[in-house]
Order: sequence, then structure tokens, then C-alpha cells
Amino acid sequence: MSILPKIIKRVSNKPPEQELGFGKTLTDSGRMMNPDGVFNVERERFGLWDNTYFNLMMMPGWTFFLYIFTSFILVNLIFSLLYCCLGVEHLQGITPGGFGHNFMQAYFFSSQTLTTVGYGHISPTGILTNLVASVESFLGLLIFALVSGLLYGRFSRPVARIAFSDKLLVSPYRSGMALMFRMINAARSELIETEVQVIVTLNQRDESGVLNRRFYALALEISKISFFSLSWTIVHDLNENSPLYGFSSQDLQDAGAEFLILVKGTDEGNQQMVHIRRSYTAEEMVWNAKFLPVIGRSRKGKARVMTSKVGQYELLEPAPDTALAN
Amino acid sequence: MSILPKIIKRVSNKPPEQELGFGKTLTDSGRMMNPDGVFNVERERFGLWDNTYFNLMMMPGWTFFLYIFTSFILVNLIFSLLYCCLGVEHLQGITPGGFGHNFMQAYFFSSQTLTTVGYGHISPTGILTNLVASVESFLGLLIFALVSGLLYGRFSRPVARIAFSDKLLVSPYRSGMALMFRMINAARSELIETEVQVIVTLNQRDESGVLNRRFYALALEISKISFFSLSWTIVHDLNENSPLYGFSSQDLQDAGAEFLILVKGTDEGNQQMVHIRRSYTAEEMVWNAKFLPVIGRSRKGKARVMTSKVGQYELLEPAPDTALAN
Amino acid sequence: MSILPKIIKRVSNKPPEQELGFGKTLTDSGRMMNPDGVFNVERERFGLWDNTYFNLMMMPGWTFFLYIFTSFILVNLIFSLLYCCLGVEHLQGITPGGFGHNFMQAYFFSSQTLTTVGYGHISPTGILTNLVASVESFLGLLIFALVSGLLYGRFSRPVARIAFSDKLLVSPYRSGMALMFRMINAARSELIETEVQVIVTLNQRDESGVLNRRFYALALEISKISFFSLSWTIVHDLNENSPLYGFSSQDLQDAGAEFLILVKGTDEGNQQMVHIRRSYTAEEMVWNAKFLPVIGRSRKGKARVMTSKVGQYELLEPAPDTALAN
Amino acid sequence: MSILPKIIKRVSNKPPEQELGFGKTLTDSGRMMNPDGVFNVERERFGLWDNTYFNLMMMPGWTFFLYIFTSFILVNLIFSLLYCCLGVEHLQGITPGGFGHNFMQAYFFSSQTLTTVGYGHISPTGILTNLVASVESFLGLLIFALVSGLLYGRFSRPVARIAFSDKLLVSPYRSGMALMFRMINAARSELIETEVQVIVTLNQRDESGVLNRRFYALALEISKISFFSLSWTIVHDLNENSPLYGFSSQDLQDAGAEFLILVKGTDEGNQQMVHIRRSYTAEEMVWNAKFLPVIGRSRKGKARVMTSKVGQYELLEPAPDTALAN
Repeated sequence: MSILPKIIKRVSNKPPEQELGFGKTLTDSGRMMNPDGVFNVERERFGLWDNTYFNLMMMPGWTFFLYIFTSFILVNLIFSLLYCCLGVEHLQGITPGGFGHNFMQAYFFSSQTLTTVGYGHISPTGILTNLVASVESFLGLLIFALVSGLLYGRFSRPVARIAFSDKLLVSPYRSGMALMFRMINAARSELIETEVQVIVTLNQRDESGVLNRRFYALALEISKISFFSLSWTIVHDLNENSPLYGFSSQDLQDAGAEFLILVKGTDEGNQQMVHIRRSYTAEEMVWNAKFLPVIGRSRKGKARVMTSKVGQYELLEPAPDTALAN
Repeated sequence: MSILPKIIKRVSNKPPEQELGFGKTLTDSGRMMNPDGVFNVERERFGLWDNTYFNLMMMPGWTFFLYIFTSFILVNLIFSLLYCCLGVEHLQGITPGGFGHNFMQAYFFSSQTLTTVGYGHISPTGILTNLVASVESFLGLLIFALVSGLLYGRFSRPVARIAFSDKLLVSPYRSGMALMFRMINAARSELIETEVQVIVTLNQRDESGVLNRRFYALALEISKISFFSLSWTIVHDLNENSPLYGFSSQDLQDAGAEFLILVKGTDEGNQQMVHIRRSYTAEEMVWNAKFLPVIGRSRKGKARVMTSKVGQYELLEPAPDTALAN
Repeated sequence: MSILPKIIKRVSNKPPEQELGFGKTLTDSGRMMNPDGVFNVERERFGLWDNTYFNLMMMPGWTFFLYIFTSFILVNLIFSLLYCCLGVEHLQGITPGGFGHNFMQAYFFSSQTLTTVGYGHISPTGILTNLVASVESFLGLLIFALVSGLLYGRFSRPVARIAFSDKLLVSPYRSGMALMFRMINAARSELIETEVQVIVTLNQRDESGVLNRRFYALALEISKISFFSLSWTIVHDLNENSPLYGFSSQDLQDAGAEFLILVKGTDEGNQQMVHIRRSYTAEEMVWNAKFLPVIGRSRKGKARVMTSKVGQYELLEPAPDTALAN
Repeated sequence: MSILPKIIKRVSNKPPEQELGFGKTLTDSGRMMNPDGVFNVERERFGLWDNTYFNLMMMPGWTFFLYIFTSFILVNLIFSLLYCCLGVEHLQGITPGGFGHNFMQAYFFSSQTLTTVGYGHISPTGILTNLVASVESFLGLLIFALVSGLLYGRFSRPVARIAFSDKLLVSPYRSGMALMFRMINAARSELIETEVQVIVTLNQRDESGVLNRRFYALALEISKISFFSLSWTIVHDLNENSPLYGFSSQDLQDAGAEFLILVKGTDEGNQQMVHIRRSYTAEEMVWNAKFLPVIGRSRKGKARVMTSKVGQYELLEPAPDTALAN
């Protein structure tokens, strides 16, 4: 059965279509947002260095360390070669030998210059070698000045550590059903004035039968809290005001439905705004289930949030994979 | 006597219940917020390194210094051991001796390498020792680049130095009584566009008798000021519109009442938003008292704020520990 | 034909004049904003150092590097001269010779001191030379501390990489025409909650015939999107509500029309607000044309944005350079 | 003649009293805000180190440099003394002599260690001297890490360079008079979405004759502009809606009137919000005068802002120091 008539009626008498900046033509490109919130889009590169800083900020810590270390070795190798070309006899303190031996000694001298450790048991003589060494120590300081900034940029970058349930549940709620997912603030710092927006995107045919990608904001029971300290279950009531009223699991899959979750809050650690995204596809929904508790009691009687249980749920009986409300 | 009927009536005809992100089930976990504004909650750890940056930012200065210094010594010890393993004979300038002597010398060499001071009276020979020294000086620079960023992160972190009165007073106000506490901006920089929100949380039984944790925003005489330059007494009139109208001291204690104070402002020093929190429990209230003045006159005739007197009050006679108004 | 009557009517019954901070007298100073968004204005300097930081942030990377490197050499030259004046005999390890030779050696010593590499094959003796060397190494650290901060300031500065179409099109739209330009987000990080404002500025005579510079905000079909992820064509419908209704290409050029584009959004990489500007003059408009598509399909079936095609359009037939709407 | 009746009438039928956070009791403490925007208030210190960071950020550049340099020398002196106590015979390379000579040599060694230049012609022997040197080089790096951060903090701090006219004019405006002052943006970076608020504070007797300090916001012809690029004359019409309607120059002086100017905008250089303040007292007003132009024409025909002329005005004839309107 086609979902067309229902939707057209809805479109004509409800205004809440959202403009997300994707246009209406992307009806067949699969998932729009990866589960981690990165948009599933390719961009032609603008310039060679354009996104270097962004990449250096976003790569994992070990990758970053390897990048820096490799650069350090590379710069050393280049300067070692340069010293060899200029003649290792200008490196006082070295007993010249074969190329390998000489290169090794030049490498050690280079490293001592780049890091400005400068023991001095090897030291430059001759104008050219001295000038090269001068430039290398200058570059060394510059590079570590850069690394210093990059490191600060990396760890001061506002990030929110939110654990999401990996499924979007359809749970009993009041007299009907509701969409629910759960989040836990896993960071030690509070998230202040946290807001959530949930947008569903689906392919729909308009009056003339053309398939369009449409976006609807879903009304939430609570969309803003003062503190996101413990866990938070976000609830969208699937009543007759919902654009998804009457949809079955199959309907949602046929329409390529995807739920985009946009979380915004202020991290109290550095008082900066953070944005977090997540997406659920129709395939990541569980129908007629409910979440298990995540807040326990610590040995000292304090409330204790069990982050690892954020996604735990139980199926309810019967689990009718049918249309939602009555 | 039960406080139930009063509250139910209030709940049904007044909407201002607040969503703070704690849910309604935490009715017996004691104080919700510590006096210093940290929530009284335990969180299961998410990942090993997750809150390292947060911790390094928040720990006291001396603790931070000790952490850094200990790390410095530790790294030195590891590399000293490494140099010993590779043979101290590869450290030119050292007169080998017993292990203790050798290790000490290796430690000094390591320290000179890690800090890149590199006097050179001890210098590395041999490929392995040279390579290790090269890596150590690289790590040294990296570590101090990191420390550089951490230090900047620490002292540039937006903090507000607000001194709060340690008691919440119930003072005569207009024809009735009012809740009052006092704040002083103890920093040299102004706090611009400062806003205060006061939320009371108490356990209440709903219509079906279930005990819930409820949150009500309290209306304030003035909740926002352009500058928080001197002192500020925040006033909540306990008139018939207050959710606490008619409560006695005992009522509040029975309900486990806690007053959450949320202050928000822009620090003019770095133009960043800051959030400050505090909490008062029913036990930290003083009934029928009033604050003593905190603004005096300096020798030059300027207004002078006496931070140390922020909490000074006098008891008024009679001090009836009874119901509040009329 | 004069454009006066039309405009006066419009001014009198429409309020949306914008205050941009330029006043009304700049009617003959040519382009108000350069295409890159920099205002076409000269400012008397306030103080010598006032804009140094701003300049150091904004100059291209290579210029910045050259500045730093030149400063490094300059400081070295000054100190070299100082060491020569104090006598190179106080630089232990140097074999004195002619001035050129001495100066060169002093330069190398200076460079080794400034970068704190301090090999030690040249070392200072005598009180004055030692003191100067002490100050130089202090300055060296200070300078690289400064450079460290500058570098961090440079690459952490919030920038948005938006590619604009180089022409402003007048395209068929609904039953009439519309102004259109296109933007592509060329950065890897999303631009969240992006808003666009378009202001047209033109010279108009008021009721008494005095020529004034006036500013009107143009209503946009969509002026805010949640994510600026792909491309975005901004549309201003040239219907009877537009302040430009009935203008011909010549009218706009006669009035010195300029379209100021103001884009505002939050960069998700560092969660900071960014502002981007652009301007189009009447001469940069193309009448009766439409943009070619920029979103293609990558080999993996993902949507792919072709940044280089942001400005590609085709002319439509007929291209009547006449008044806009019937 | 007393100004009382006029004011009471005004107070009773106009609500716009402002809460600035000063209370109503400061009626005799002279100027409330210094001309540079710093409040004229003394604060009891909270803790020894509390405002150190703020002070280090705000002090002039040369003072900051002297602080750092003095600290550098001080730390050197302390360590020199320590090396002397441990015995200069443990500083290899030194020829011991009188205390002055020894101390000088120890000072040079200390400086070479603190800056990590470590030439090595002087080097530590003995366990204690080595350990002290190790700690000193560690501290050296820590101190320069700190300085690095402080320097970055200083020059990245959001500041706005706004030149204000030094007088507040009462100028002819429409059919009456208006308060006017002028600002010029003297920085190279634009100030975006700039807002101005003007608050007048004066001593007034309330109904019972008690003298209170009162604050009124003054309505402005334009209070927000999109760009603060050139100059901006802020205008408050002294018509019958103004709380100052009918005041004479003498009235304002008698009431201790002070005009607080609060400017807020976003610096486009670093995209941060900045706040600027200024104050004018009744004595800094000039009656019946008008500002001279500040926008000229550069040689290339560009608009040119002449910052130095921001405060230039001419007196108009007659200059009646009388009541303001009709």
C-alpha cells in the first residue's frame, strides 16, 4: 500500500517542514548522516591546506602523535642529508667514516639542533654548516611552537561525551505509543541548558507524484533541560499531531526514514557551546520495547549513572510490527 | 500533619514546574547539589582518558604542579634506566662506577636531555644511546608543549569568584516575609548581564500518593542586573504566589527541600560566559533574620565592598519558627 | 528616465530601511564592500601597535613566516653587533680574525643563544658578554613563546570557507523572476544554524531631491538553515513586495546598487560563530540566467559537492535586459 | 529651585528604571564610573592570588615585560645563591675566586640552565648541584610555558578600540534638542551587530523626601547597527518622553547626573563579543554645540575616517545654558 495520500494531506495542512540545507533531490543516496553524526557527503577539495587544521584536530591521539613524530624524523633526515652534502668535516667532533656512519652522526647532530638540546660534543664549523644549523634550530622552535598550539587546540576543543542508546524504541506511552531514545552524559562536567531537536527525513511524493526528500521536526515531551547531569530519555508522542501518525515499521523503511538527532548544550568545564549529532534509520528502530533503568545507587547512597547500560531495553509482549496508534 | 493537600492544590493550578534533568525518582538520595555547586552524583566511567583534561583543569594549582613534577621525574627515571641498560659507557664524560653512581649520572644526563639544556659535559655515543637521546629530547619538547597548553587552559578558564552568604535567610519584607541570600563579586573584573535563577526542589506526593521529587522556579524581585559590581541580595517574596507560601521550617525539612542557585554572567576580563551554582538546604536557613551591611566607605570616599562580611546577619525578635506569612 | 518617483513612493510606504552604520552621505565613493567582504574604507591610525595583532592574524601564511624569520635574523644581527662591540675575545672558542670573520662567528654564537641550542663550542666569558648572552636567551624564549601564541591564534581563528558564485543571477522563479546567488561550504566541518542576510544599498533622492545612500533588507525564500552542508542557492523573489520591483539593469547601475551578503553560522569544528561577507555590484549581475547543478554522485553513490562549479550558469533565451517583472 | 516635583511626577508615571546592581544608597560617592569605564569602587581582596591572572592580562605591555624580566632575574638570583651554598667547586669550568666572582659565575650558570641554553663550559658535578640544576631547568621550561600562555592570553583578549568624543553635546535636533556623543571604530576589524545602551543616573528624592540614586535608560534614535565600520553619533532626543525633559545644565549638576555608556559588539577578527564602557558626567556636557564631520575622502577617493577628530565640535549661537526644550 502506498503512503502517498496520508502524507499529502499532512503536508497541506501542517507547516512544520524544516529546511536543513540538503535540498529535496537527495532521495536515493542512502543514509544521510552516519551514526556518529558525520554527514554522508563527499566534498570536492577547495585548496590543499584547507582542512589540515580540522584534520589535525579531529584525528585520534595516537595518529596525531605518529604524524608529529614522523614529521620530526623527516625534518631530521632532510637536514642530515644537507649536512652530509656540505661535508661532515664541518661537524667538529665527528670522526668521519663511511657514508652510513657519517649520515648517522649528522642525524644525531641534526636532532640535537632541532630540539635545541645542543650537547656540543658535535658542533658546526664553517659558514654554510653554521647557517644551516642556525636555520634548523629556528625551525625546531617554530615546529614545537606549532605543536604546542595544536596540542592545546586538541584538548581544549569543546567535546561532549554523550552515550546514546543504539536503538530508537517505539514504547507504550500514555494511552498510545511514543518514539524514545536515551542519552547519558558520560563526561564529568555538566552540560548546561541542553536542548534536543529531532528531525525525521523521508522520501515523499508531492501532489504531482515527484519523489522529494522532506524533513519534519518532531515535537518532544521535553526538549530542553537546565542540566544534563544523569540520563535523559527523549520522547516523541506518536499521537495524531505527529507527522508519523499511522506509519508502520514497513512504511518507515519504504520511505527511507532517518531520524536526525541534534543536541546542543554548554559544557561547564570550559563554558563553551557544544553540538552533538546522531542519526537512527528505520532499521535501527525496535518496536514495542522499553528501556531498562540506568540510574542505580552507589555504595555511599548517591545516585549512580551506569553509562554502559544506556541502550539496554526489554521487548514487550505482543510486539506487533504494525501501524502505530489505535 | 501532612503537607500533601496544600501541595496538590498548588500543583494543579500552577504550571511552573521545572525540568532540571534529574527525573522524579531521586527522593531519598540526600543533598542533590553540594554547597559548592557540584552535583552529588556518581558516574560510571566511560573511558580511561575521558575526563583527564577536565581533571587537569579543575585540580588545585599545587596538585597540578605536583602532577607535572612527578611526571617529569618519572620520565627521567625511565630513560635513566634505559641508558643504564644500553651501557653507561655510551655516555661520554661519565666515569663509570657502581650501579647507584651510574644510574645517578644517567639520570642527570636524562634530565639535561629532557629539558634540552644539554650542557654537553655528558654526551651520547653509539647509535642506540644517540637514538634514545634523540627521542627523549623530542618527548621533552612535546611534554612541555602539552604543559604549556594545560597551563594556559587552566588560567584562562572562565571562573567567577562569587562569595555567597552561607545561610539563606527568611527576612521581613514589605508586609510579609521573603527568602534572601546575598552574593558579592570578589573578582576585580565585572560580571556583566548577570542573571540568577532559584529553584526549590522538594519531595511531594502526587494525587495517587506516590512520592516524587519536584522542582519549582521561585520568582525573584530582581533576577537580572546589568553589572554585578558590588553586592547583590536576591529576594524571593513568600507571598501567596510562592510555591512555598505557608511552609514552616519543619515542613521544608520534612520535604527535604533544597534551594538550587544558578548564576550566569559574562566576565568582562575575557568576555566569556560563566555559570556558578550553589545550593542551600532547609537546614541552612535562618528564620527571621536580616543581613548586615557590606558596603562601606574607603578612606578616599569610594564605595568599598567588604567581601568577608557577605554572610553576616542579625536575628530579629521574635524569631517564630512557624508558618511563614500572615 | 529618472528612477525617482518609483522610489519615493516605495520609501514612504515601506519601513524596512536598514541601519548599517555608514550613514547616508557616502553616495559617490564607489563600491562599499570589496568582493571579499572587506569594507572599502580607510581609517586613520589610532596607535602604532594597534592593529599589529590583527595584521599578524590575517596575513597569509608565507608572509607570516617571512616576518618571523626576518625578525629572527634581525635580532641575531643586533646581538652579533653587540658581541663584536664587547669584543669577540670574550667569546671563548673563537679564533679572532678580520671583522667579517668575527662578526660571522658572533652571529653563530648569537643564533645558538637565541634558540637556546647552546652547543658550547663557543661560550661567553667576562661579565658583560655573559649578561648580554643571558638576556638574549631570555628574549629568545620570550619571542618563541610569542610566536607559539601567534601560531595558535592563526590556525584556531574561526574561519569559514565558503565559495560564492561570482555572479548574482536574475532567474525565472515561480511566475516571475528572482535574484539568486549560490554558496558552497568548502570546509570539512559543518556550518550549523547558518543565516543569510541580503541588503541592497542604492543612491536615492528623498522628497526634497537630496541624494541619499539607502539600505533595504531583501526578503529571502529561506534565510536560515540548520546545516550548511552542501550547496545553498539564496533566492529573493522580485515580486511587488520587493524594493527592487520594476528596476531594470540600467536602473540598478544608475543607482550604484550594491548587494551586501552577510552570512553567519557556527563552525562545528571549534563551535565558534563565524561571519562571512560578500558583495555584488549591479555590474556583477547576469540577467535571465540560471545556475547549473553542483551536486553530483561520487563513485560510492554518495552525494558529492563540486566546489569548482559553484558559479556555473547558463543564459536563457530571450535575455531581455529590461525591467524585471511584467 | 528644587528639581523635586518634576522628578517625582516622572517617577510615578514612568516605569523604565534600570537595575544596574549598585543599589540606591550610593548618593554621595562622586563619579560612579571612571571615564575609561572602570567602576569607581574598592573591593576587599578575596584571596592573595585571586586577581593575579586578571592583572597580568590588563597591565600595559611594558609593565608586563618588566614583571617577567624581573621574575627571570629573581629566580636566577635565588638559584645562584643556592649554587654558591652548595659550593662553586661543583660547577666544573669555573675558576673559584672571591664571593662576588663566584656568585657572578653561578649566576651565569643559573641563567644558562633556566633558559636551557646550557653551553656546557660550566657544568654541574656532584649529586646535589646536579639535582638543583635539573629542577632549575624544569622550572625554566615551566615558567616559559606559563609566559607563553600569558602572552597568548594578552594579545588574543577581545578588545575593542573605540574612540569616544570627550564631551557629551546637547545639539539642535529636529524641532528641539538632543543629547549626542560620537564614537569611532579605530580598529582594523569590524565590530558587528554593535549595540549601545545609555543610562543616566541621578540622585532624586522619593515621595518621602529620602535621597536615592536612580537609573533611567535613555531611548536612542538608533541603538543597534549591523556594522560599526566608520563613525557613529548616538542620539537621545530630549523630547517630552525623555526622563531628562526640562532639565537645565544646573539641574543635572545638582543631581550629580552621570551618563553610563555601554557598548556591545562582536569583533570580526576573533569573532568574540566585546563590551566597552564609558561615562560622562554633567560637567562633561557642552550645551548647544554640534559635532564637526569626521569622514573625509582619501586620495584614492575612498571614505576616510579621521579618528583624531572624533571629539571636535563647534559652539552654536546663542548658547543658552537654560532648560532644554522649548
